[in-house]
Amino acid sequence: MAYADTRFLTRRRALSARLAGMRIDEMLVTNLIHVRYLSGFSGSQGALVLSKDLTAEIATDGRYTTQIAEEVPDIPVVIERQSARELLRRIEGPRRVGFEADYVSVAELERLKEVCNEDVTLVPVTGVIEDLRLIKDNTERIRLTELAELASTAFAELIAGGELAVGRSEREVAADLEYRMRRMGAERPSFDTIVASGPNSAKPHHTAGDRIIHRGDLVILDFGAHARGFNSDMTRTVAMGEADDFTREIYDIVLRAQLAGVEAATPGTRLVDVDAAARSVIEDAGYGEFFVHSTGHGIGLELHESPSASQTAEGVLAEHMTLTIEPGIYVPGRGGVRIEDTILITQGPARIITPASKDLRVV
Amino acid sequence: MAYADTRFLTRRRALSARLAGMRIDEMLVTNLIHVRYLSGFSGSQGALVLSKDLTAEIATDGRYTTQIAEEVPDIPVVIERQSARELLRRIEGPRRVGFEADYVSVAELERLKEVCNEDVTLVPVTGVIEDLRLIKDNTERIRLTELAELASTAFAELIAGGELAVGRSEREVAADLEYRMRRMGAERPSFDTIVASGPNSAKPHHTAGDRIIHRGDLVILDFGAHARGFNSDMTRTVAMGEADDFTREIYDIVLRAQLAGVEAATPGTRLVDVDAAARSVIEDAGYGEFFVHSTGHGIGLELHESPSASQTAEGVLAEHMTLTIEPGIYVPGRGGVRIEDTILITQGPARIITPASKDLRVV
Repeated sequence: MAYADTRFLTRRRALSARLAGMRIDEMLVTNLIHVRYLSGFSGSQGALVLSKDLTAEIATDGRYTTQIAEEVPDIPVVIERQSARELLRRIEGPRRVGFEADYVSVAELERLKEVCNEDVTLVPVTGVIEDLRLIKDNTERIRLTELAELASTAFAELIAGGELAVGRSEREVAADLEYRMRRMGAERPSFDTIVASGPNSAKPHHTAGDRIIHRGDLVILDFGAHARGFNSDMTRTVAMGEADDFTREIYDIVLRAQLAGVEAATPGTRLVDVDAAARSVIEDAGYGEFFVHSTGHGIGLELHESPSASQTAEGVLAEHMTLTIEPGIYVPGRGGVRIEDTILITQGPARIITPASKDLRVV
Repeated sequence: MAYADTRFLTRRRALSARLAGMRIDEMLVTNLIHVRYLSGFSGSQGALVLSKDLTAEIATDGRYTTQIAEEVPDIPVVIERQSARELLRRIEGPRRVGFEADYVSVAELERLKEVCNEDVTLVPVTGVIEDLRLIKDNTERIRLTELAELASTAFAELIAGGELAVGRSEREVAADLEYRMRRMGAERPSFDTIVASGPNSAKPHHTAGDRIIHRGDLVILDFGAHARGFNSDMTRTVAMGEADDFTREIYDIVLRAQLAGVEAATPGTRLVDVDAAARSVIEDAGYGEFFVHSTGHGIGLELHESPSASQTAEGVLAEHMTLTIEPGIYVPGRGGVRIEDTILITQGPARIITPASKDLRVV
C-alpha cells in the first residue's frame, strides 16, 4: 500500500501545483477515471476535492464504505450519495473552485450551484488532468505492458487452437478471443471486438457479425483487454487458406507503413510527422485514398486518449507517452488490412509492447 | 424497413408534439441512445435535429456514410465530423432550440453557442425523451423478451454443463456465462457479470474475482446480455453442494419478497408501494436491515432507466413499462441471496420475461 499511496500522492501533488498556477483554490473532480487516477478509488460513484495546498476529501455512497477505506487509506472519506454536491457544500470562505467542464453536464452544474456557499466561485477547468495523464508512470507502463501481452497471448492461442477457421462466423471467433482474454484475467474487452472478414475487412467500423469466414478471405482482428482500469489495443490481419498477389501487396505496404510510424515515434517528434511517416508509405504505393483514418492514439485509463497521431494533430511526443500505430488500407469490394501495435515512447526507439508477430500469417 | 420507419416516425411524432407544448421550435438530440431511439442510427458519433413540425436532419461522420443510409432511409443526412455543431449552425430565423441539458457538458455548450446564429435561443431540456422511453413499444418488448430468454438459456446451460462448480473461480464461471451469451448472439454483457461466492455474496457491489468456490457457499449470479441496443438483467442464487437452515431461511424470504413485488406491479400502482410490497416481507421476517438497496429499476436501451421502485420513488406504473424486481438479503460474514426477474407491466398481472426457475437450486 505504501507504494500505491506514493503514486497517487505524486499525482495529486502535480495537480495541486497546476491549480496554484491557475489561481484555483480547490478542484472538484467528478470524472470517475480522474477520481481513480488521483486516489485509487475504483467505485462507480464518487467525487474528490483537492486543494492547491494538497489537502483532499473523497466522497462515495454506502455501498463502497469498506472498499474506499481499503483503496484510499490516505484521504478523509465522506459517505454521502450526492457525493459531488456534498463536497462542494462543505467548502467555505472565499474560494475559487474548479470543476471539470468537459464532464459536468449543464443540468448538473445548476445543481452544483444550488449548494455552493455564497463566497464560492465555480470556475470551468478543462484538460488539466488529461495533461498529467499523458505521461505514464512506472506502474501504468507495467499495467499497460501486461495487458498488451495478455491480448497477444490470447490471440496466439486462438490461432494455435484453430479457432480462427474457415466455416466459422465472425461472432464465434470474437467470442472465443474474448473468452480467452477473460480467462486470463481481463475484466472485459476494452471495446467491441472487431472480426471483419472478406468484404467486411474493407469497412473500418465493422465489428463482428454473422458472416461465415471463407477461404481466401482477409480477416482483420482488432481487440483489447480491460483490467484494473487500464486497456490494451492491437490489430492483426490474417489470410484464410491462401494469400493472393493483392493481399500480399497491400499487407506489405501496411506493414512497411506501420514500421515507419513506429520508427518515427521518438521524443520531440511532432505528432503530424508520425502520422505522415506511416501515411506517406501508403500514399507512395498509390493507396493513399484507402487509408481513411488517423495513424494512432494514446491509450491508458481510456482506450482513446491524448495524444493523437493524425494529419491535424498538435503537439509533440515525449518520453513515457503511449501511442498506437495502426495504419490500414481498405479497398471496397476487395478487402482490407490493418496492423496495430501499442508503443511506449522512450529516449531511444519506441518500445513496442504488443509482442505478436506482424509477419503475414496464412491459416 | 417500412415497419422500422413507422416505429421511429411514431416516436418522433410524439416528441414533436411535446416540443410544441414547450414552445420549443427545434430539438437538438446529442445523446446517442436518443438518436438511435428516434432514428434507428446505431453509430458511435452523430446528432439529430427534430422540429415541432416533424422535419428532421441527422448528421454523422464519413465512417458511417453507408451505414446511416441503410439504417435511416427517411431523414436527410449531413456528413460532418462536428455533427451537433453543424446541425445547429444550419438553423436560421428566430428559433428556440432545445438541447439535452443532462448530457451536454458545460464546455460543449460553449462550443455550441459559438456556432449559433444570432436569433437562435438555446433552451435546456431535461427528461422529455426519457419520458417517452418509459413506455415500451411492441418491438422493444419483443427485443427485451428475447434478451431475457437468451440470458436465462445461457444460465441453464451453464448449470447443465457443470460449469458452476466447487473448485472453480468466480472469474472462470463469469467467463463461461459471458461466453455462452456471446455465442448465442449477445454483443457484450450488459454489465460486469457478478459471480459472488461465499462471503462475497454478502457484498452487493462485488463483481467476480479470483475466489475459489467452496462447498456450502451461496453464489449470487447477476448478469445480462446486450444486443441491438437493448439489455437484459437477471439474478439467481445457487447453493453449492448443500443448503443449511440459514440458507433455506433467507432464500425462502427473498423468494417470497420477490413474488410479492411482482404481484404488486400493476398499472396505477405507486412505485413506492411496489418497493414496500417486497421490502415488507423481508422486514416482517426480521431481516429488514440486510436489504440495503432498492427493489428494482426500468430496463431498455439503458440497463438502469426509469422508473425506479425504491423507498423514495415518485410516480406510478403504467402498461408497457419494464421493471426489475430484485430484493436481497446480505448478512456480512454469513452470505447473501438475491433473486431478480425482469417484468413487463400489462393490464393484468405483470408478465415475467425471465423464464428461469426460482426454486432453490443446490448444485
